Amino acid sequence: MTTPPEREAAVMVDVRRVVGTGPVTPDRDALAVEEPLEIRIEGEPMAVTMRTPGADLDLVAGFLFTEGVIDGVDDLHALAHVDDPADPRGNTVDCVLAGGVPAARRDRARRELFASSSCGVCGKASIDRIFLTTPALVPMPPPAPELMHALPARLRAAQEVFGHTGGLHAAALFTEDGELSVLREDIGRHNAVDKVIGACLRADVMPARTPILLVSGRAGFEIVQKALMASIPVLASVGAPSSLAVSLARRGGMVLAGFLRNGRYNLYSGSSDLP
Amino acid sequence: MTTPPEREAAVMVDVRRVVGTGPVTPDRDALAVEEPLEIRIEGEPMAVTMRTPGADLDLVAGFLFTEGVIDGVDDLHALAHVDDPADPRGNTVDCVLAGGVPAARRDRARRELFASSSCGVCGKASIDRIFLTTPALVPMPPPAPELMHALPARLRAAQEVFGHTGGLHAAALFTEDGELSVLREDIGRHNAVDKVIGACLRADVMPARTPILLVSGRAGFEIVQKALMASIPVLASVGAPSSLAVSLARRGGMVLAGFLRNGRYNLYSGSSDLP
Repeated sequence: MTTPPEREAAVMVDVRRVVGTGPVTPDRDALAVEEPLEIRIEGEPMAVTMRTPGADLDLVAGFLFTEGVIDGVDDLHALAHVDDPADPRGNTVDCVLAGGVPAARRDRARRELFASSSCGVCGKASIDRIFLTTPALVPMPPPAPELMHALPARLRAAQEVFGHTGGLHAAALFTEDGELSVLREDIGRHNAVDKVIGACLRADVMPARTPILLVSGRAGFEIVQKALMASIPVLASVGAPSSLAVSLARRGGMVLAGFLRNGRYNLYSGSSDLP
Repeated sequence: MTTPPEREAAVMVDVRRVVGTGPVTPDRDALAVEEPLEIRIEGEPMAVTMRTPGADLDLVAGFLFTEGVIDGVDDLHALAHVDDPADPRGNTVDCVLAGGVPAARRDRARRELFASSSCGVCGKASIDRIFLTTPALVPMPPPAPELMHALPARLRAAQEVFGHTGGLHAAALFTEDGELSVLREDIGRHNAVDKVIGACLRADVMPARTPILLVSGRAGFEIVQKALMASIPVLASVGAPSSLAVSLARRGGMVLAGFLRNGRYNLYSGSSDLP
């Protein structure tokens, strides 16, 4: 176990810019860094996710939580980058579970983590499972429009990397008063959400105190799933929600707003006159 | 085995529109459909991917090809939706491999498909593996700027669903002359690419004859990986590429253009004066 190396979320590369049919000009461009992170449980490789380096421990804590392996930070005995000369870039994190974690959950991790990924590849089993394992959500009414409209600008103002690369998704938790409390970025929007949830877990701040999750892109099934796992009552996305995201939000009693930008949004779930 | 049911790529749902702080108005909104597709090989479940229904057989063919399970359409003895009363929505596809497919590839599918997904979750093993299994690319010089600038509008013109939902990614292959030859959409950009590649395979049209792949969103590692597997020499994305996408494109000798929109783009790879 070791201190993670300092990692940049963006890297500069040589490019050739083409504008119209004018001369092609050499330039430098910032790219979002994308590298694999191997997640181990007590030395055994469990999952590999492509992520933007940074907040790796938040990512792993959030991933294990939203996958149902840990119930909270108390289930984590240790969480650290692996000190491996073959991995000088800090792309491996190992976690030691607390003694009290039921064997069934450890086994499920071993059996299912590869199968039900945090992105895209999740199964019917996950859909059926989600309501078995999510804590009951304490529903909230939709926040006031004035508050909702203000969120995207607050998210953008807090983002450091996004403006440079155009390649990072952001996820942020806001208080009931619309104050930004946690912001994380990643090339994968599911990773950004796992990082936010993991940061809350590790700081022992329950999402109930920062009940509004905003994601910069689309809201698919897996984003709603992760938010439900973390008992987050309000999810807003700058982009479109998917059909399954709406179904899941409605079943879970979650407020789901989509296309939150330019002073407008759509409520898909959580309004008293919606299914 | 049965004919797949007719499936819509978008579904209408009740929403409440919020514009400024004006009255909240009931409305209907089209959402991209997102549902799980279970991929079976000879009856055995191999992978589950969240996808937008439509072109399912293209998706499975492309997925198996870009994952290295099949070398071409000749390796597919049969490919069809499963006729299962428990799955009336056609969310399961089974494929029977041809007798000549080496046992090692079947076993690898069984062992690795869950692990190395088509999205996000792919491993260091995949990165190391990619150059072992990809056919050598026949490099092409970057297409002329006039041709490149014209592609996004041709893609948008050909998209039916995107304008309605804002929630679908598109991938399209173009000829050397910039003529659109194959277009597929999905809520997952990796799925859209797998659908395009699978459609080529099933029609026995080699990508070499339609060498330019355009994706509507970002170009991450997995998109470059899939394009390399299909020997596609030119990849353009409307959004940003990731660092790993650029590395992989440069190693593979692929032309990679990013931010292709509004009469400009950046070349990240494939220009003779770039690494």
